Amino acid sequence: MAGFGLDGEIRDGRHYLAVRVYYEDTDFTGIVYHASYLRFMERGRTNMLRLPGAEHRAHFEEADGQGIGFVVRSMAIDFLKPPRMDDILAVITEPEEVKGASMMLRQRVARGDDLLVDAHVRVAWVSGGRARPIPRSVRLAMQTARAQIGG
Amino acid sequence: MAGFGLDGEIRDGRHYLAVRVYYEDTDFTGIVYHASYLRFMERGRTNMLRLPGAEHRAHFEEADGQGIGFVVRSMAIDFLKPPRMDDILAVITEPEEVKGASMMLRQRVARGDDLLVDAHVRVAWVSGGRARPIPRSVRLAMQTARAQIGG
Amino acid sequence: MAGFGLDGEIRDGRHYLAVRVYYEDTDFTGIVYHASYLRFMERGRTNMLRLPGAEHRAHFEEADGQGIGFVVRSMAIDFLKPPRMDDILAVITEPEEVKGASMMLRQRVARGDDLLVDAHVRVAWVSGGRARPIPRSVRLAMQTARAQIGG
Amino acid sequence: MAGFGLDGEIRDGRHYLAVRVYYEDTDFTGIVYHASYLRFMERGRTNMLRLPGAEHRAHFEEADGQGIGFVVRSMAIDFLKPPRMDDILAVITEPEEVKGASMMLRQRVARGDDLLVDAHVRVAWVSGGRARPIPRSVRLAMQTARAQIGG
Repeated sequence: MAGFGLDGEIRDGRHYLAVRVYYEDTDFTGIVYHASYLRFMERGRTNMLRLPGAEHRAHFEEADGQGIGFVVRSMAIDFLKPPRMDDILAVITEPEEVKGASMMLRQRVARGDDLLVDAHVRVAWVSGGRARPIPRSVRLAMQTARAQIGG
Repeated sequence: MAGFGLDGEIRDGRHYLAVRVYYEDTDFTGIVYHASYLRFMERGRTNMLRLPGAEHRAHFEEADGQGIGFVVRSMAIDFLKPPRMDDILAVITEPEEVKGASMMLRQRVARGDDLLVDAHVRVAWVSGGRARPIPRSVRLAMQTARAQIGG
Repeated sequence: MAGFGLDGEIRDGRHYLAVRVYYEDTDFTGIVYHASYLRFMERGRTNMLRLPGAEHRAHFEEADGQGIGFVVRSMAIDFLKPPRMDDILAVITEPEEVKGASMMLRQRVARGDDLLVDAHVRVAWVSGGRARPIPRSVRLAMQTARAQIGG
Repeated sequence: MAGFGLDGEIRDGRHYLAVRVYYEDTDFTGIVYHASYLRFMERGRTNMLRLPGAEHRAHFEEADGQGIGFVVRSMAIDFLKPPRMDDILAVITEPEEVKGASMMLRQRVARGDDLLVDAHVRVAWVSGGRARPIPRSVRLAMQTARAQIGG
């Protein structure tokens, strides 16, 4: 799993990213702080969505700094088991539904065969402070991934 | 709103906490980073649940450092409008359902009359690494709050 | 100490801010994560520097989103004693040296009479991506504070 | 640089870790939030110190959860240039001085040939809440690294 590379990789339509748990991710109860998973999942999404050309900063600069990029609209998340310091986790991201104005992604965090977190995340594309159609290159890439996963 | 005090206060069964948005809470798109709301809401929960005697560290120490306290089991969250740097927000926490093993809390983040975030958060009480009945003092306090809110 | 108010207050030239330690600030060793102090101290600085009119977002918008505000140039920090979950801390900020292009601030974090962190922080004023003279209103306010502290 | 692997690698006595800048690391001014560097540097230290057998959680558990591990005692840090969203950074860690009770590490953050952050960090080994001699395996590994770097 440590072999996914800095930005992770796509296999059969799913994006895999390896994440190591550091001091910064834990809290005094000894396990990972619940908001840390949102950071892990955002890294997975950012990397999956960067691949088809969605360089985040580039888009931001095109829009004159007017708040562009993917924005999370809603999220449902189950925390099943807690990871601990030094664990290596896999963040697995896949498109569940790709529409013109938003996408639903499923994101899971696993440690080996253990599923730790299971989430459904709706993201929209925002530019100049308003929702816009998702760029065609990203939409096509996500639809292709969706088709590869099947179901 | 700035008058709620460091730990917020309970009014008619709901807990109100004022939170100022700082640099640390924002990201390069100019708005609040989505995981920051989970930190704000955890501050609200912690303060509401501390009031009936659930001093977090004290419970932790009683349990020989074996991971005690409220743990988030699941969360559904809608991000409606984004706050910005320097904004003052209110985190409003109320019990929706109080059972022996878990509680459902509704948590909202507002800026003045604007509702920014609306979430439902299920928490359980964990001690020695296992789920346990919620301490009676906390459960009673939450049921009383629930009755005050009505509905 | 809990009486300082949301943005803290200035007494005799020093700015005092009360900060509660939450789950988010701790790590698995049971104490506050070392980078959390930088967040606490930034809250103290932001509030002290907001008082003379340095509304952070307002300055940012004036500059067309070109990266304005106080930027930390360097920092020397001693971590003397660790705080824990639920502790209430005071962040104490005072100007040590006020020049046209930068200021040196001393920032301390205390728990009651215990000094926990002692830091010296150099900040500069940046606008449009470049260092600029510190706005006159801020400089005067800091020089006045400096004179009140004496020494 | 993306080829360092999840935990980075040691070359000629220095530890190199690649870090990607994500949303979570930035703030509304468009650059990396200053406390984020401390998180990056902690990841570098943790990985360098894990290599000679200092598995962090293992040590922690041996000590009955009594707060063991490397603790930062002091830090001097210069922020030279700011990185931005999507940048890939190298965190370079090397021992400067290795004593029985503490070590001074130099840590730099670079983007290509640009040095962005330069820091000197004193860490001590704490177990059961008290400073202890640094474990021999770690000390020897750091002395070997020190000798390889020369100077």
